[in-house]
Amino acid sequence: MQYSSIPLAQSITLLCLSKGIKHVVISPGSRNAPLTISFSNHPDIEAYSVVDERSAAFFALGLAQQLKEPVALCCSSGSALLNYYPAIAEAYYSDVPLVVISADRPVERIDIGDGQTIRQKNVYQNHILYSANLYSELVLEEAVPIDPKLKQKLFEAQKHNEREINLALNMAIEQNGPVHVNAPFYEPLYQLVEKSSVAPLSIEPIREPKTTTKKALQPYAEIWNKAKKKLVLVGVNKPNAVEQAYLDWLAEDPSVLVFTETTSNLHHEKFITRIDKLIAPIEASTNKENEFQQLQPDLLLTFGGLIISKKIKAFLRTYQPKHHWHVDAKKAFDTFFCLNKHFDVNVNEFFNKFSKIVTPVESNYRDQWLEVNAQRDVHHDKYMEEIPFCDLKAFRQVLQQMPEEQVVHLSNSSVVRYAQLFRLSPSLQVYCNRGTSGIDGSSSTAVGASVRANFPTTLITGDISFLYDSNALWNNYIPKSFRIIIINNQGGGIFRILPGAKEAAHFSTFFETTHNLRANHLAEMYNFSYQAATDEKSLKNELIPFYAEGDRPKILEIFTPREDNDQYLKNYFKVLLPES
Amino acid sequence: MQYSSIPLAQSITLLCLSKGIKHVVISPGSRNAPLTISFSNHPDIEAYSVVDERSAAFFALGLAQQLKEPVALCCSSGSALLNYYPAIAEAYYSDVPLVVISADRPVERIDIGDGQTIRQKNVYQNHILYSANLYSELVLEEAVPIDPKLKQKLFEAQKHNEREINLALNMAIEQNGPVHVNAPFYEPLYQLVEKSSVAPLSIEPIREPKTTTKKALQPYAEIWNKAKKKLVLVGVNKPNAVEQAYLDWLAEDPSVLVFTETTSNLHHEKFITRIDKLIAPIEASTNKENEFQQLQPDLLLTFGGLIISKKIKAFLRTYQPKHHWHVDAKKAFDTFFCLNKHFDVNVNEFFNKFSKIVTPVESNYRDQWLEVNAQRDVHHDKYMEEIPFCDLKAFRQVLQQMPEEQVVHLSNSSVVRYAQLFRLSPSLQVYCNRGTSGIDGSSSTAVGASVRANFPTTLITGDISFLYDSNALWNNYIPKSFRIIIINNQGGGIFRILPGAKEAAHFSTFFETTHNLRANHLAEMYNFSYQAATDEKSLKNELIPFYAEGDRPKILEIFTPREDNDQYLKNYFKVLLPES
Repeated sequence: MQYSSIPLAQSITLLCLSKGIKHVVISPGSRNAPLTISFSNHPDIEAYSVVDERSAAFFALGLAQQLKEPVALCCSSGSALLNYYPAIAEAYYSDVPLVVISADRPVERIDIGDGQTIRQKNVYQNHILYSANLYSELVLEEAVPIDPKLKQKLFEAQKHNEREINLALNMAIEQNGPVHVNAPFYEPLYQLVEKSSVAPLSIEPIREPKTTTKKALQPYAEIWNKAKKKLVLVGVNKPNAVEQAYLDWLAEDPSVLVFTETTSNLHHEKFITRIDKLIAPIEASTNKENEFQQLQPDLLLTFGGLIISKKIKAFLRTYQPKHHWHVDAKKAFDTFFCLNKHFDVNVNEFFNKFSKIVTPVESNYRDQWLEVNAQRDVHHDKYMEEIPFCDLKAFRQVLQQMPEEQVVHLSNSSVVRYAQLFRLSPSLQVYCNRGTSGIDGSSSTAVGASVRANFPTTLITGDISFLYDSNALWNNYIPKSFRIIIINNQGGGIFRILPGAKEAAHFSTFFETTHNLRANHLAEMYNFSYQAATDEKSLKNELIPFYAEGDRPKILEIFTPREDNDQYLKNYFKVLLPES
Repeated sequence: MQYSSIPLAQSITLLCLSKGIKHVVISPGSRNAPLTISFSNHPDIEAYSVVDERSAAFFALGLAQQLKEPVALCCSSGSALLNYYPAIAEAYYSDVPLVVISADRPVERIDIGDGQTIRQKNVYQNHILYSANLYSELVLEEAVPIDPKLKQKLFEAQKHNEREINLALNMAIEQNGPVHVNAPFYEPLYQLVEKSSVAPLSIEPIREPKTTTKKALQPYAEIWNKAKKKLVLVGVNKPNAVEQAYLDWLAEDPSVLVFTETTSNLHHEKFITRIDKLIAPIEASTNKENEFQQLQPDLLLTFGGLIISKKIKAFLRTYQPKHHWHVDAKKAFDTFFCLNKHFDVNVNEFFNKFSKIVTPVESNYRDQWLEVNAQRDVHHDKYMEEIPFCDLKAFRQVLQQMPEEQVVHLSNSSVVRYAQLFRLSPSLQVYCNRGTSGIDGSSSTAVGASVRANFPTTLITGDISFLYDSNALWNNYIPKSFRIIIINNQGGGIFRILPGAKEAAHFSTFFETTHNLRANHLAEMYNFSYQAATDEKSLKNELIPFYAEGDRPKILEIFTPREDNDQYLKNYFKVLLPES
């Protein structure tokens, strides 16, 4: 077992280990050599090498989501760490623990013209839970024999570093988000020792979950018991995050209507899984005002992360409930401008206590809307049979033929929206970078997931997202079970759907950004097998061998008619109307 | 002529134009539609569409360097603008004017769970000259008919926005660096008007250069006239930035030794262009102390940007001059820890006044070192003939066969270092991203340059830099004269050169990051012609058709022996010793 000779590098390594942080994604550099050496030499640490820091950080995000524990990132000084920022913002908003460890030059080398040197201190400050700015202590260490007073200074500098590293790592664990540890190192950077020269104090993170009591919840139970129209709206959740017993309990109450999205990762036959399919026809209805008033809840209970559906946001911002309660141990967003209660506990803890003090309420609220929803399904199925091959039809086919027990990563932004229109198998675990909803790292996140997921991973992506993050494929850890499905509509199809966009001058250049690129070259370069489909029949046929075992990962590229896709989507929402 | 209906978008467009900002690089998005529409519709604006914001920002940097004027960047809200950050830091340290215009959601939509929404205000604060955080005024505008008091508020909000935009744009022009304009917009985003509804006040930037006087310089002339050993060390300069008359004047003084680098872009036969070739043998000499003392200047005069040579930095930090003066209108870095005077004027202005009040000083300082340098050249030439094909030899061949009058972009980090070992033709204009010395945008910057350079552009890059920034090729503006030369040594060859690195465990995985990738797939994908060379003869042969005119841009990939390259470089410095 060898460590870097630099105590700060040892301290970071040992403290990561003491907190159970065992996965480190390293991007190559010289300034971070003390960390790279210490991490890659340690038998308890799994180190991954990914060159492009932007991709590396999203890769780490995908790993952390699957591992359900913090993953560390390690890079050199300079602009390297700025490339982490898109993934850090995503982790910040989607509550994924990432520990960013950047090597730095000592403070006296900043802003004097040295290479790969920027102002790293607090550089992520808008989107970080904690920034630990550490001392480089080597100069002091060398001076110790000269002056005993310096020995105390060195001791205290080491203790400062230990405390700051502890605070950062604990914050990542306790609050599930990104933290930054900035570690300046003096040269030489490559010296080794057989035994660590420090034994840093590990401050235990608070791992005990917060609890609540029936007594504390009693006033809310009274409100709940009086409300005849209760909407439960579920955002992004990890698979299996909520106990099924509580979902079943919710589904039993006729005054409770539950709306979920694919990224909610929870299932019950009485839940409405496709919100836009329900709401879009109301928006277009001649009886809109009346129908929305019927749907308007007295009480809105939300849990989970961000909501995809714009339509539900618009509806609830206009037809506000009297009460909006959010259940989450960490935070509550006032998404609908009417949040009046944050239950700051885990959702299982909340339901455990709350379910015991509330009673079902007589109401036709749930059944009324389940019936409307059943009507929509009839129109949905009929329309899907009628339309020719297009994005919408391709999604249906892909989702129909998706094997059970897959991790499914959806890219932003039209892919995740299309996916909301279909009922997915409960055995699928669905992810999408909805923290910032960027297209910048969908593929790299999926690759990270594929490395540590319990199930095989499929990424469904658009062509623009795929091209944007093509460095995701420059990765030595991709399992042969990994699958990428590209819906290639030769541009940013989402812009054809946005109201008004298509009429803008230079639309195809500056909005849709049309292109004729295909993924076959990248597939060959990065050793993926490649298949293509151009219509319903070929897609159906290609999907069968695509999901067969192979000796390397696979790409299936589906070409859809660029200029027609938006029309079939817009018509979809029209035909859902009951009168149609 | 059509504008967005939103006054803020009109104001930004009109103020950019009023200051002569006419080039805008746009990345697709919906929130920035008001800006995209206004910019792309205006006949006086050249708009470029580049999807990947990281690449777009470096592309803009390359444009701005060639145009010698600010270039604007425009993107949507959310993580999009975080992808600009690497190029912004580069622009910050290399003094390139970039105007980053990010669309945002209105402030009440931030941190409530809306998509593509982050904390954009001051997000680049560590590396930006100015951040203009603007009001979204539409709500006020709609309220105006109700309350006349609101009319005054709207007026003042508009005036606030105008002033902030002015301050940001003026700062970019006056201080040559990046600024950030954050513009929140309400929906609808795609509405048009035929005539702008605002006429924003344009505050003139200060364009008058600073001046100095002979009187102010007199005390320094006295120091100069007494110094027998004066070293002039030149960092990064734009081509033709310094008048040749002043260079000739410097070269005439026997007490003045001038060190330049390829990126200095100035030339005189009496200047020493290859610093490491001169210094490395001294470091290895048995007479090191004495030789360095002979080289140690009494006075160090520097101008230009960052210095590439680590050896000159190490030398001057140890053998410090009594005086270090830096000439630059904007800033002076204390690179050698002994800067005691900053002349804050343009270098031509300084030399204009200073050259008239100083006199040449009797000294053998210059000629002594020119003679040493001539000896080094003999060893250099002999060694180059002797060695087999390797990185070093490939560089010699490439630079020998480089056509005259080219813009040459060098990637970080081994490429720019290798290039310092050769004498380049004075007709070449040499660029490298030395602000942060990152590998993240070398190719995109070169592509940007190629679009607006007066000469054809050649990028010389390493394989890792090339793969990192491969999205640079996803660009519709690349001229057919553009050339890319990739020195493919199958990994980060720089790490083999760093002392101690090669002995680290897992070296090839975490430092060198070896690979077997080739550029041919990317060439085919992005419609470049592709050639390859594997030895001296094939390189010589391939370079001839490579520089012939063609109907599309070209890539030449040179494969060098990964495991031998570092040995030939290390030996190079050994054989330069006079005794060898």
